[in-house]
Amino acid sequence: MPERFLVGRDFLSLKHFGKDEIHQFLWTAKDLKTRIKDNGEVLQPLTGKTAALVFEKDDTASRLNAELGLARLGGQAAYFNASDLHLDGKENWKDSARLLAGAADLIIVGAGKQEVLEEVANESTVPVVTGMSDLLQPLQVLAYFVTLQEYFGYLRGLKIAWIGDGNSVLNSLLYGCARLGIDLNTATPVGYEPDTDVMLDAMKISGQTGASFLIGNDPLQAVYRADAIIADSWTKPGADDENIKKRIKDFAGFGVNRKMMKEAGGEWVFLHSLPRRPHEVTDDIYYGQESLVWRAAENRLWITMAVMLHLFQPYSPTTPKPKYVRG
Amino acid sequence: MPERFLVGRDFLSLKHFGKDEIHQFLWTAKDLKTRIKDNGEVLQPLTGKTAALVFEKDDTASRLNAELGLARLGGQAAYFNASDLHLDGKENWKDSARLLAGAADLIIVGAGKQEVLEEVANESTVPVVTGMSDLLQPLQVLAYFVTLQEYFGYLRGLKIAWIGDGNSVLNSLLYGCARLGIDLNTATPVGYEPDTDVMLDAMKISGQTGASFLIGNDPLQAVYRADAIIADSWTKPGADDENIKKRIKDFAGFGVNRKMMKEAGGEWVFLHSLPRRPHEVTDDIYYGQESLVWRAAENRLWITMAVMLHLFQPYSPTTPKPKYVRG
Amino acid sequence: MPERFLVGRDFLSLKHFGKDEIHQFLWTAKDLKTRIKDNGEVLQPLTGKTAALVFEKDDTASRLNAELGLARLGGQAAYFNASDLHLDGKENWKDSARLLAGAADLIIVGAGKQEVLEEVANESTVPVVTGMSDLLQPLQVLAYFVTLQEYFGYLRGLKIAWIGDGNSVLNSLLYGCARLGIDLNTATPVGYEPDTDVMLDAMKISGQTGASFLIGNDPLQAVYRADAIIADSWTKPGADDENIKKRIKDFAGFGVNRKMMKEAGGEWVFLHSLPRRPHEVTDDIYYGQESLVWRAAENRLWITMAVMLHLFQPYSPTTPKPKYVRG
Repeated sequence: MPERFLVGRDFLSLKHFGKDEIHQFLWTAKDLKTRIKDNGEVLQPLTGKTAALVFEKDDTASRLNAELGLARLGGQAAYFNASDLHLDGKENWKDSARLLAGAADLIIVGAGKQEVLEEVANESTVPVVTGMSDLLQPLQVLAYFVTLQEYFGYLRGLKIAWIGDGNSVLNSLLYGCARLGIDLNTATPVGYEPDTDVMLDAMKISGQTGASFLIGNDPLQAVYRADAIIADSWTKPGADDENIKKRIKDFAGFGVNRKMMKEAGGEWVFLHSLPRRPHEVTDDIYYGQESLVWRAAENRLWITMAVMLHLFQPYSPTTPKPKYVRG
Repeated sequence: MPERFLVGRDFLSLKHFGKDEIHQFLWTAKDLKTRIKDNGEVLQPLTGKTAALVFEKDDTASRLNAELGLARLGGQAAYFNASDLHLDGKENWKDSARLLAGAADLIIVGAGKQEVLEEVANESTVPVVTGMSDLLQPLQVLAYFVTLQEYFGYLRGLKIAWIGDGNSVLNSLLYGCARLGIDLNTATPVGYEPDTDVMLDAMKISGQTGASFLIGNDPLQAVYRADAIIADSWTKPGADDENIKKRIKDFAGFGVNRKMMKEAGGEWVFLHSLPRRPHEVTDDIYYGQESLVWRAAENRLWITMAVMLHLFQPYSPTTPKPKYVRG
Repeated sequence: MPERFLVGRDFLSLKHFGKDEIHQFLWTAKDLKTRIKDNGEVLQPLTGKTAALVFEKDDTASRLNAELGLARLGGQAAYFNASDLHLDGKENWKDSARLLAGAADLIIVGAGKQEVLEEVANESTVPVVTGMSDLLQPLQVLAYFVTLQEYFGYLRGLKIAWIGDGNSVLNSLLYGCARLGIDLNTATPVGYEPDTDVMLDAMKISGQTGASFLIGNDPLQAVYRADAIIADSWTKPGADDENIKKRIKDFAGFGVNRKMMKEAGGEWVFLHSLPRRPHEVTDDIYYGQESLVWRAAENRLWITMAVMLHLFQPYSPTTPKPKYVRG
């Protein structure tokens, strides 16, 4: 049972997982979706298992998918926000991590700083999962990978274009594409590039896997012959009006529209991780036939289930392994 | 298995359900109560099933009964309020409906405007249930029907009197009485009548089923020879002091008390859907021997379970069908 | 099956439980921990059972342990705070208690005033458990007892020292030590003594069980030859800055540190019920090798499970009964 290797691990960054491990997560996500949704099987491997969700800022998608995902597998989650935990300093995160680890079998953390997640992981005796941070958002990226594999039938061989902010999703996308050998073009406004350390790390990994990266500031260049275009929110949750206004100005020309997509050429699909503001992409694309937005939102459920399941215990899919490389 | 007809449907208004369908919900509610509460059976037909609860304003009774009702049948719910979903416009409800439908097997919505519920139902690929709206409150009305059937042994043949505001519960009561052929008298202060469209609709339906309606503004006339008196909150949740003061003035004479009940004559029972203010009904009635308030509150649990169960999957009660027509 | 005696009872105060009953709770806590955590058994005796948690002020530890504890045994809980229940007076607690008892199989209440808990218990048709109150905190004390029994191998024969505020935990500790015949020394600042009625009650009980109490205001005297030192928060949750400042001044000399612990002599352990402020105990003790803080936090889960389980239904442990008396 090779999938034993994932049991008990933390899920903090795709940087820490190899190609075969990421493929395992993706395969299990698809397997659970097929067995439970398509075939109507009732699987309850996590009966009696529990998770604590702790978020500094409320994140609906993370909470929805973790709570209901665990529920579908027989487990249960309890949700806490920062004020519940009286969190106002690093030391309190330390105490809270120990408290939570004493009661729950798994902890999912959303925090601004990635160091908080690492602190929790250090103190915890149970696996810790990144719900969100300013630096990384690995579950969303794996949801995109499940979705693109479903649609195109493979991942390596695709060219992905990212248009917009160099945020946590893009940082994790760099790691994910590097690990799986997927080509990635990025266009962010000047001053909104992805994290420098992540870029350097990802470049180094991509050298081994053959992924080709084009990091730049030109949307038209980025989308050229791309198979998948990913946009995202231009602001962080809870941003004030001033900040929103500034960003809308700084991101002029980065809204995805049909004119821009002429550069993509043939068949392309569109992705966005919600919530979305109209500046970021026009309605005809967001709600249109090229949009895989809602399918990706749903696949966030199945990948969250797959990751939790593998951290809890060994699992072997019973459906055939999907193809992850073109040809 | 005739109860197959309810699977996958939305539960937005009693207007959309025929007599046999409503009887089926009521029968199943009583059946689940008997099997689980009285006989101690452990039924888990909804193992692995999930629901998302989304409410613009917190509604304890709806949440309590949906969360714990689903729990009793083996499923699980996750609760979100409007701020969790960043809901500040109709378009966001559209996106949220799709997001929730991707993760949950059922959505229960509480919103001010009935159009929001219809929007969610339009966008959702899974059944949508009215938790509350300013227009309708069908689950509360079915809870009253379960309670009155339990007490009197039938429904058609009863005369119900409504004293107070022409609110969402009354609107749904009009539909419910029209569908099942139950006589209904209403007394609301001038200017607080039930919704005009609902009244017209209900009158039309009652013509086919033989329900007799007396719509007016005189409490003494309404309670005359009534079997069941229903009062309700005079204000909406979250009303400000000004509004509460105005309503208490406008509703003078509509508080239920023993003097008024002399008009009812023989055996009568009292119902109210909580929370209650003392102006609405005197303590000796609210906490007295004629009060079925708490039994109805409990039956809200069983009817919520019955409705969810039938929308999820076919179910055939194993206990005898109660009588719904007098004689 | 002698443990039948606990089914259906309220769990409001250790005052109401005899030695054998308390030993039963402690035994079952240890039994569940061994079977589920150590042996990996999947026990789901509470499948289909539900609890409502209602707290005037959020209490993370209570909520975490009740929600996830019930989940581990197959049941489910729903959490409400005071604003959910529109609680602004005693009458509303009365109505809420009836409402909750109609939907849930068990109610866990956290309230400032102990009278509120008693009011809820009076109105409820299902068992009521003290989550917290200003007067009592019995679950925390039982968690300490599980922890000390695990560590020392017995309880009667130990000397416990309490240093700090005469709060709800200390009041329940007085009852617990009185019932089980455990010696207890307390040192609280003048004006912060434990509740007078509780002290008198506990003294009376201790006369029958042989517990020896030293109630005073001198930390050094209290810790002399103690086996376990318990400190706690000096303030109530939600205290304002003024109050915190005043208390830090009033509690000067009551912070636990290594110099003070020289009086304890040989082997001693340290306990604290979180959240902790640095004034209350130095880091080298709080995070040090004598600290059982985190083990007690975890045991709060298992004792909460044990208490809920026995109130719900008969349970006979399958692991050997631990020793509760020295020698």
